[in-house]
Order: sequence, then structure tokens, then C-alpha cells
Amino acid sequence: MAPKTQTTALFLCLLICISTTSSTYGRKTQPRRPCKELVFYFHDILYLGYNPHNATAAIVASPKWGNKTAMAKPFNFGDLVVFDDPITLDNNLHSPPVGRAQGMYLYDQWSIYGAWLGFSFLFNSTDHVGTLNFAGADPLINKTRDISVIGGTGDFFMARGVATVSTDAFEGDVYFRLRVDIRLYECW
Amino acid sequence: MAPKTQTTALFLCLLICISTTSSTYGRKTQPRRPCKELVFYFHDILYLGYNPHNATAAIVASPKWGNKTAMAKPFNFGDLVVFDDPITLDNNLHSPPVGRAQGMYLYDQWSIYGAWLGFSFLFNSTDHVGTLNFAGADPLINKTRDISVIGGTGDFFMARGVATVSTDAFEGDVYFRLRVDIRLYECW
Amino acid sequence: MAPKTQTTALFLCLLICISTTSSTYGRKTQPRRPCKELVFYFHDILYLGYNPHNATAAIVASPKWGNKTAMAKPFNFGDLVVFDDPITLDNNLHSPPVGRAQGMYLYDQWSIYGAWLGFSFLFNSTDHVGTLNFAGADPLINKTRDISVIGGTGDFFMARGVATVSTDAFEGDVYFRLRVDIRLYECW
Repeated sequence: MAPKTQTTALFLCLLICISTTSSTYGRKTQPRRPCKELVFYFHDILYLGYNPHNATAAIVASPKWGNKTAMAKPFNFGDLVVFDDPITLDNNLHSPPVGRAQGMYLYDQWSIYGAWLGFSFLFNSTDHVGTLNFAGADPLINKTRDISVIGGTGDFFMARGVATVSTDAFEGDVYFRLRVDIRLYECW
Repeated sequence: MAPKTQTTALFLCLLICISTTSSTYGRKTQPRRPCKELVFYFHDILYLGYNPHNATAAIVASPKWGNKTAMAKPFNFGDLVVFDDPITLDNNLHSPPVGRAQGMYLYDQWSIYGAWLGFSFLFNSTDHVGTLNFAGADPLINKTRDISVIGGTGDFFMARGVATVSTDAFEGDVYFRLRVDIRLYECW
Repeated sequence: MAPKTQTTALFLCLLICISTTSSTYGRKTQPRRPCKELVFYFHDILYLGYNPHNATAAIVASPKWGNKTAMAKPFNFGDLVVFDDPITLDNNLHSPPVGRAQGMYLYDQWSIYGAWLGFSFLFNSTDHVGTLNFAGADPLINKTRDISVIGGTGDFFMARGVATVSTDAFEGDVYFRLRVDIRLYECW
């Protein structure tokens, strides 16, 4: 190795060192390149008094002016819904579920439709074993909404990322289907 | 470059390498230097039966001994409140909102006032587009309370940090104003 | 330092540089070595109408077919419980509490017992001052369940990790004790 090459390599190395070191201080400079990408659909059938046998979700809290078998007016504000929804790989409600989406959504906008989501995906299949945990705002007026992947366990140990949620279908208050594009940026 | 300088640089580089590498194992050694700091106020006007026109929040769940137009005794324990509150840059309720704080607080202390918070800040202005997601305990007896920034989207993509919440004003059960000092320690 | 040794060191350094740099891109390659491990127990006594004096938790929301003094059938689905539970170092309810577990659990499974958890541990003792924030799924059919540590404050500033929850005891609907094995993988 010629001294000049060596010196060049040394400078290159120093440069990498410095940029790497600085990236571990507060501000990260990672490119926004996902380490894992997943797409799922989940299906929500709300209990509205007449459908106990196929409902997957139920209103459990509502404002003073609401009740548990109809969405509150206006804009469902104040309705808290608990759900246990099947997750599928495609947009067919009758496809074999690959997991369950479980948790809550909470309508929290007075002047448009919007919700706050806190839920988990639970997987126990040949493809995935583990959970992904989500939290974030779901302003339904937007075609796509980004929420946070705040953690994971099992195959998704310590995962963080962003999930892009879009309403793939809805039928009145009783049924909706969400498509969730998950991009993990921290994988372990 | 003289050999001695080169050797010194090499050792320096090795040292940086090693310290950097070790910092990527479990325990991080970053200084607690925020990569972004933001201060906001948000304003909560609770529906108490008589104020439907200016309320921004409503009790949607309460314990057996509570109801939806008054806080439960003692210490509001068990009251779950959904809110859609304006965010302002200063402590004036009538300043132009720069976003909305949406989600829930849940009074969860039997012997003092305290709540659990799960909510988001939604921005769509010239300054910020995106969301910040928060979760944590809010023991109201303390002058300042730290909660977690558990994620973010848009301008706040993948953000993590700590938000220091303080009660800037309150008027009985009906109105309070929180000051939120957000310090992000992970920015992308 | 002989040129050969120097060259070897340089290559070694470059290698470390590169591996370190690559680990800061999306996919992390850290070994799963906790930076902090903690074990706690917490004790939940549910209000069921007859026990106001020692209850630590209360049903605050339930589905149409439920109420606030008994768990809903089947599988408690739709019951939202707010809790303020003592944390102890051992499995004795009467041991001196070292903190409080505060937040909610939400039964969200139709066909087995399972819940979604959103809560915090609050410490203010000689051992720990600060909070840990948790979220995740708790499918009770499993002996152990992993949830996410989504953030922390004070002594647990910016913490992330996984908590393994197991039911250490339960007495009907009224009392249960959870053991929580916390492993933090991000410490600051």
C-alpha cells in the first residue's frame, strides 16, 4: 500500500467516523429506507343492535348525547369503539385471516370524521409470530393517513416505523375495510 | 503527512470507531441534546351539560358512580374524556390555531388528581405538516409532568422525545390550558 | 508502529467504520442485550359494586350488553377498566409499594380472554424517580405476553424495550396480580 493511498484511506475513514459519530447525536441522518415493508387489510363490522352474530367491533363509550347502537352526531365525536378484527392479505373479508387487529378507535373530531387509534396486530402463523403496536391520528378526510408503529414483539422485536392507513371500502356505519401499508425503519 | 501525525490520526480514528460502535449496543451514550424544540399551548373546554356550543371535549365514560356532565368524585377517577382542542403558539385561547390536539385523557388516580394521556398533535400549516403522537402519565399534583413523544409522521417522521406538560391556567372543571414543551431527541 | 501493523489497523478501522455505518441505516444489527432489567408485580382489585373501600380499578365503559359492576359476557369483550394499582417488588399485595401502575386495560377479544393495555409505571422512591410508558396486546391465554415499553422519563429518559407480562395470581373477576419483567434495550 503506497503512503498516498494509505493517507487517502485514512482520511476517508476519518470522514466516515465523524459522520457516523455525529449521526448518533440527537439528530439522525439516516436515509428513509425501510428495513421491512408489509401490507395488510383489516375488516371492521360494527355492532349496531341487530347484528350480534357477525359483529367484530362494538361502541363501548359515547358522549351524553350518544348511545351504544348508533354513532353519535355530529361526526361520531366521542364514540369509543373496541374491535377484534380479522387481518387478511387481500381485500376479501372471507380470505383466511393471517392475524387479528385488536384495540380501539376513538372518534375525536367535532367538525369532520376523524379518530385516534390505539391497537395491535397479533400474528401467530407460519409467516409471522409476534405483535406490532400502533398509535396515532386517523383524520378520515384524508385519502391516506400516517400513524406510528410504536413497538413490536416476537418477529417484530423493538420495531418502529410508520403505517399508512387508507379506507379501502366502507358500507354506511356497519362495515369498513382498512388497507395498512407498514414501513418499518427500525428493525432488530 | 508525517508518519507520527498519521499514527496519531489513526489512533484517534480507532478511538472514535470504538466509542461509536459501543454506543450502538444496547446502552446509548448520547448526550441529552434535543434535535428539535417546540412550545405550544392547547385549550380544553369540557362539555358539562350547559355549553354545547363552545365545548371542545366531552366525558364519554365514567365509573358506576359518575355521569357524563360532571366529573366523578373523588378526583375524577374513572372519567374518560375525548378532546379536539385548538393548539396555539401563545397562551391566548383566541389566537389563530396552528393545529389540533386530539385524543383522550383518562383520570386514573384515586387519591390525587392525575390522568393518563393518549393523543396526537395534528399540524397542517405553513410551519408544520404532520403529526406528533404522545402517551404518558400526567400526575396533576406536579407543576411539570413529562410524557413521551412515541412517534411522529410528516415533518416529524419517526420522531421520539419528551414533552413537558404544565397547567398554564384552569377555571374549575370547565376550562384548562396546557403548555407543552416538546423536546425531540430522535429526528430523521 | 511498523507500516504493516499500521495497514492492518487501518483495515480493521475501516471494517469497524463500515459495519458501524451500516448499522445506522434502517436495519439495526444490535445484539438483543438489555441495557436494564427490572422485575415488578402489580395488584389489581376490581370494583364490582360491593368493594368500594379496597378497589384499585373500575369498569368505566362496557358494550350495550354490559354494565359497570360485572364483566361482560362473553370474555369481558368491550369492558374498559381504569386502574391505579400498587407496584411491589415481590408478589405480596401488602408489601410496601414502590410505585403505581396507572392507566387502562380494554378487553378486546371475542373468543378468548385478551386485552389491550395502555398504562404507565410511576416511580418516586429512593430507587427510581420517573415513569415508564407501556402499550400492547395482552392475550391472556398465553402464559407470558410481550408488550412494548414505548417511552420513559426521569431515570428512564427515552427508554424503549419489551415487558413480559404473566398472570401471577387471580381470584375470579375481583383480583389479579401481574408479574412484569421489563427489559430495556434503549437506555440514554
